Amino acid sequence: MPHSASRPLTLHPDRLLPADPATRALARELYASVAGLPIVSPHGHTDPSWFAGNASFGNATELLLVPDHYVFRMLYSQGVPMEALGVGGAKVDPREAWRLFAERYHLFRGTPSRMWLDWVFAEAFGIDVRLDGGTSDHYFDTITDALTTDAFRPRALFERFNIEVIATTESPLDSLEHHAVIGASGWQGKVVTAYRPDPVVDPDFEGFRDNLRTFSDLTGEDCLSWTGYLNAHRQRRAFFASMGATSTDHGHPTALTADLGTVEAEALFRKVLAGTFTAEDAELFRAQMLTEMAAMSIDDGLVMQIHPGAFRNHNARVFETFGRDKGADIPSRTEYVRALKPLLDRFGNDPRLSVILFTLDESTYARELAPLAGHYPCLKLGPAWWFHDSPEGMRRFRRATTETAGFYNTVGFNDDTRAFLSIPARHDVARRIDCGFLAELVMEHRIEDWEAAELAQELSYNLVKQAYKL
Amino acid sequence: MPHSASRPLTLHPDRLLPADPATRALARELYASVAGLPIVSPHGHTDPSWFAGNASFGNATELLLVPDHYVFRMLYSQGVPMEALGVGGAKVDPREAWRLFAERYHLFRGTPSRMWLDWVFAEAFGIDVRLDGGTSDHYFDTITDALTTDAFRPRALFERFNIEVIATTESPLDSLEHHAVIGASGWQGKVVTAYRPDPVVDPDFEGFRDNLRTFSDLTGEDCLSWTGYLNAHRQRRAFFASMGATSTDHGHPTALTADLGTVEAEALFRKVLAGTFTAEDAELFRAQMLTEMAAMSIDDGLVMQIHPGAFRNHNARVFETFGRDKGADIPSRTEYVRALKPLLDRFGNDPRLSVILFTLDESTYARELAPLAGHYPCLKLGPAWWFHDSPEGMRRFRRATTETAGFYNTVGFNDDTRAFLSIPARHDVARRIDCGFLAELVMEHRIEDWEAAELAQELSYNLVKQAYKL
Amino acid sequence: MPHSASRPLTLHPDRLLPADPATRALARELYASVAGLPIVSPHGHTDPSWFAGNASFGNATELLLVPDHYVFRMLYSQGVPMEALGVGGAKVDPREAWRLFAERYHLFRGTPSRMWLDWVFAEAFGIDVRLDGGTSDHYFDTITDALTTDAFRPRALFERFNIEVIATTESPLDSLEHHAVIGASGWQGKVVTAYRPDPVVDPDFEGFRDNLRTFSDLTGEDCLSWTGYLNAHRQRRAFFASMGATSTDHGHPTALTADLGTVEAEALFRKVLAGTFTAEDAELFRAQMLTEMAAMSIDDGLVMQIHPGAFRNHNARVFETFGRDKGADIPSRTEYVRALKPLLDRFGNDPRLSVILFTLDESTYARELAPLAGHYPCLKLGPAWWFHDSPEGMRRFRRATTETAGFYNTVGFNDDTRAFLSIPARHDVARRIDCGFLAELVMEHRIEDWEAAELAQELSYNLVKQAYKL
Repeated sequence: MPHSASRPLTLHPDRLLPADPATRALARELYASVAGLPIVSPHGHTDPSWFAGNASFGNATELLLVPDHYVFRMLYSQGVPMEALGVGGAKVDPREAWRLFAERYHLFRGTPSRMWLDWVFAEAFGIDVRLDGGTSDHYFDTITDALTTDAFRPRALFERFNIEVIATTESPLDSLEHHAVIGASGWQGKVVTAYRPDPVVDPDFEGFRDNLRTFSDLTGEDCLSWTGYLNAHRQRRAFFASMGATSTDHGHPTALTADLGTVEAEALFRKVLAGTFTAEDAELFRAQMLTEMAAMSIDDGLVMQIHPGAFRNHNARVFETFGRDKGADIPSRTEYVRALKPLLDRFGNDPRLSVILFTLDESTYARELAPLAGHYPCLKLGPAWWFHDSPEGMRRFRRATTETAGFYNTVGFNDDTRAFLSIPARHDVARRIDCGFLAELVMEHRIEDWEAAELAQELSYNLVKQAYKL
Repeated sequence: MPHSASRPLTLHPDRLLPADPATRALARELYASVAGLPIVSPHGHTDPSWFAGNASFGNATELLLVPDHYVFRMLYSQGVPMEALGVGGAKVDPREAWRLFAERYHLFRGTPSRMWLDWVFAEAFGIDVRLDGGTSDHYFDTITDALTTDAFRPRALFERFNIEVIATTESPLDSLEHHAVIGASGWQGKVVTAYRPDPVVDPDFEGFRDNLRTFSDLTGEDCLSWTGYLNAHRQRRAFFASMGATSTDHGHPTALTADLGTVEAEALFRKVLAGTFTAEDAELFRAQMLTEMAAMSIDDGLVMQIHPGAFRNHNARVFETFGRDKGADIPSRTEYVRALKPLLDRFGNDPRLSVILFTLDESTYARELAPLAGHYPCLKLGPAWWFHDSPEGMRRFRRATTETAGFYNTVGFNDDTRAFLSIPARHDVARRIDCGFLAELVMEHRIEDWEAAELAQELSYNLVKQAYKL
Repeated sequence: MPHSASRPLTLHPDRLLPADPATRALARELYASVAGLPIVSPHGHTDPSWFAGNASFGNATELLLVPDHYVFRMLYSQGVPMEALGVGGAKVDPREAWRLFAERYHLFRGTPSRMWLDWVFAEAFGIDVRLDGGTSDHYFDTITDALTTDAFRPRALFERFNIEVIATTESPLDSLEHHAVIGASGWQGKVVTAYRPDPVVDPDFEGFRDNLRTFSDLTGEDCLSWTGYLNAHRQRRAFFASMGATSTDHGHPTALTADLGTVEAEALFRKVLAGTFTAEDAELFRAQMLTEMAAMSIDDGLVMQIHPGAFRNHNARVFETFGRDKGADIPSRTEYVRALKPLLDRFGNDPRLSVILFTLDESTYARELAPLAGHYPCLKLGPAWWFHDSPEGMRRFRRATTETAGFYNTVGFNDDTRAFLSIPARHDVARRIDCGFLAELVMEHRIEDWEAAELAQELSYNLVKQAYKL
């Protein structure tokens, strides 16, 4: 039973719509026309084993706190040790870990995590009081109890969330066994993979050389030869495509591309294999591999996604103690104009290529990315990403890119998340913000109302299907 | 006759004014007070031969599609081959090229091109249905027919558009014959030139050495000697001034300036002449020439405009096939604080010098440009430029610069266009956005209403005349 | 007596609140709840001798014009010689200098200086007409007369302004005699110091080596040895803390930190002492000293403030003629992610350390600073600083940082000023803008109204006291 002084939790139907009454009325109408559209999630990090095994999700802490680095990074920044939250496999009483979170839920005021979580609490679990120290146990019990029911198993949620298709992200070394299980299961949910080759294209990746040996074993190619290595990619890409993949994904530190001749490329490959490479060699190899991937995309039709600019694992102690993806990846300045030129010089005008660019450096939206996407036929702009997947971030994205690239060089929304339960909330935020933006354009007579209605459909549903070939 | 299902085209009188009703009412009043002011266009790329020869403009495609890289870049980005549009002299049926555009006019939703074009269609040509596939022929015929009439000859449009003065931009190698013809014609339209020396100050410019030989021939100076070369500039600047020029214009890749001693400058000049220079030499030579131009400006009073930061001709294949100015110039990060210091150390406090700075890198507005212009007597800020000459871009410009540089260190609006028919629409957008911004300041009681009224006049008319000495 | 045609000066009670009526009503209510809270000013540049000696402030020009580089930089940018204003000790008739300012007061339209000054004129001095050429003498006389009264002595103003505590900023070489006088005086006003070691940690600082000798004399340590030098810092920090200091302040050109071993650090120290150092050596020494200061902060609890990114004294002639702090400091691009890593690798997870980061490069708010502060327990974000301490600047700060860092990783407001009379106006602007921002979040249902009320208190009063341990 919640604390007697607890505050009611309700989701206002007009949340995130512009404050001006006439603009809001218009935005509300646009939103109503897209709110019920199916979710197309072309890029994210849900675990395919959830949908393969369809097991229950455990308790509130295991589901919502431990895996969500948006949440525990904020708590950590305010002095809560990660160990106390159960991050990194630390043994904790999940109810007490949850309480540490509940008592500090005010830290999330004004953040997108707060909006997503409130949606999960209210809509997914039907909770009607706000989370705080006094309601902590009520939350923990309500959520944990619900998770034992069939209605909260992964497949049931997938259906309830009206997900038309979701893409996971796997390494070329992944067997895709879970996807195979899903495919063979007779369940109708569409879960596809995406080809994320970082472990075998990034010489700085943990175990790079071992990964290449596994790559050889998996493909029967000699991945210690340049030709065999490229063939292995081709083979795995074809396998991924056969498991539904329509895209590849590249999470490099920068957007650098290169277009070396075969001799130089081979020599560089031998260098990175030998382990004697410099930081510049590693960067050049990754750069070359983007161009190689583009060449393969022209052949097999997979859409390239480039997600550059994160300084990964910035906190040395946290990385040593807890490993990757612990909220310590920090964006850094990213350059695109010179970086992409080698790839674009080679393939930029080829109608068969499609490259979706993302950024963590918003200063590039209007300066570099929109001008590039507004010219090159192969380039499109991914939505506001990661730290910028937020109401203000999405508004900045639309305001900074639309005038130069238009709407049709963008690709709808990506949730990019492993927080499965938040997926509807994230798409809902994007639809609300886009409808608010469109309503503002109508109010200023920059587009007509019927155009806004068409665009609301495009941004919520059509563009993502076209851009990702889904 | 347009398609039966065609949508009406009307320009809403409140377009681009803020949505909040009280703010809009105020903005409307401010706008009404400046809407009819004459157009002062101190920087642009119209062709003086239009006003000299006063010939008709041809057909709709030749006038509005083929020369407008804002338009065909967007179509190209969405897969329309430039050849099919007639770009670069390709032979096409202009009616069919127009149809490719008309069918894809939705791509421009939310872009400034859409606003400018709708103004041209509705106001200049009196068309009352929207452009789409169904109205394509109606548009093509209406526009092409109108262009055969005297009312659509360049001088008539100039007068109808209420242009008080317009500046074109010419190379020092230009004879200015068209300006001479205009001057001798008795026509009262004021068309002045501006001195754009890139072909003879940029060692990377196509034909740089040949250009210097022509420069010698034209001036009688030995332009292969440093002294003769500088004298040739002085002579041509004086000639340009005699043809009405009040400004120079410098379109360098960066804002770098240098202040070499005469010996070093001469040695560098010999190096770039010899053709053995590095990229750094070329950059340093351009940098030095900005300071030389500033020195000459102090003598002859020409206002300097610096337009840095474009990576020109980024698309190698497009450049080879179609040449310059084909929508493939991409902005890049631009630094001003260190770059301008050599010039400013030498002349920054000289009251005779006036330098107008532009940028394609909006991150410099508040960080670098406004602080510089809010201190140095010689510096002023040009308006939001190129990709940023748009409603959102102009708002960002005012919001980011006003608090530090004020309004009086800015210089009004530049249309910077070769799309002659869009000039009134562009100035109109600027006036609307500025009036909306002023209305917002009044609504927040940051300025008084009578100040906003004064400022509306300043931003629309007075400041540009003062800054450009027009 | 003011000019007969003079305009009334009134401060609108709703100034700076959002224009939308419902949002404004909410913002007004929030603002009313914090408008009367005491001022906590944890970082600034008021002169402790004012409060020690409690002497009158002189005339209008001496108080408001000559020391305020925000004001005279704008006048200088528009052609008024600094000499004519009395800057740098030039002899002028203060009434005539004031007139130069009064006649050009329109230059400040839209700037924060205008808002702060109008508050000083109307609220502090009770003037009811606007400043212009016609009211110049009225202003000069009214202000100058008031300054002769006891009510306008520093301590009386301090009390009238409801200042709970104010921090000044002193060099380690400062005797803190004025603070001692204040402490011994029996006056209850709380004036603390802050440790700003730039003169003894920056090898490029004027007189660096002489400063170290004074440092030795003052501490009895051998400051030409690395150990003695560090001990001297420890000793002076302890002395500053005994005089109320709770913070240190570091105004470096960049945010670079380093973590050299003792041998390398000592060698570097010898190099900078020997005067044979390069620009890189100086940078590295400053970088190392940030880490040394962090180590000392862990021991003595002083909060570190890092204020990087100003290119100081950019105008060479102005610096030679008039010296430092003459409005010619220009922000430049600033990198944090790599720069701070050495310090963070060593101390970033130590709960005893607290570092407050500031920036002049707003592109880092969302990209670097909010992600860093939203993860590292030791990091918090200082408020919008210097050129960005303005309505638009503060809004950009909240919009760009809140979604990733939340409110609780920020530290309230800093006035950072030497313009004592403007301090209430500056805090008032911050409270108004923050309340407006909170009201907007409520209107969009991103937070609840009761949360906004709590946050208004946090941002206006609580967070600054916690963050600065005041």
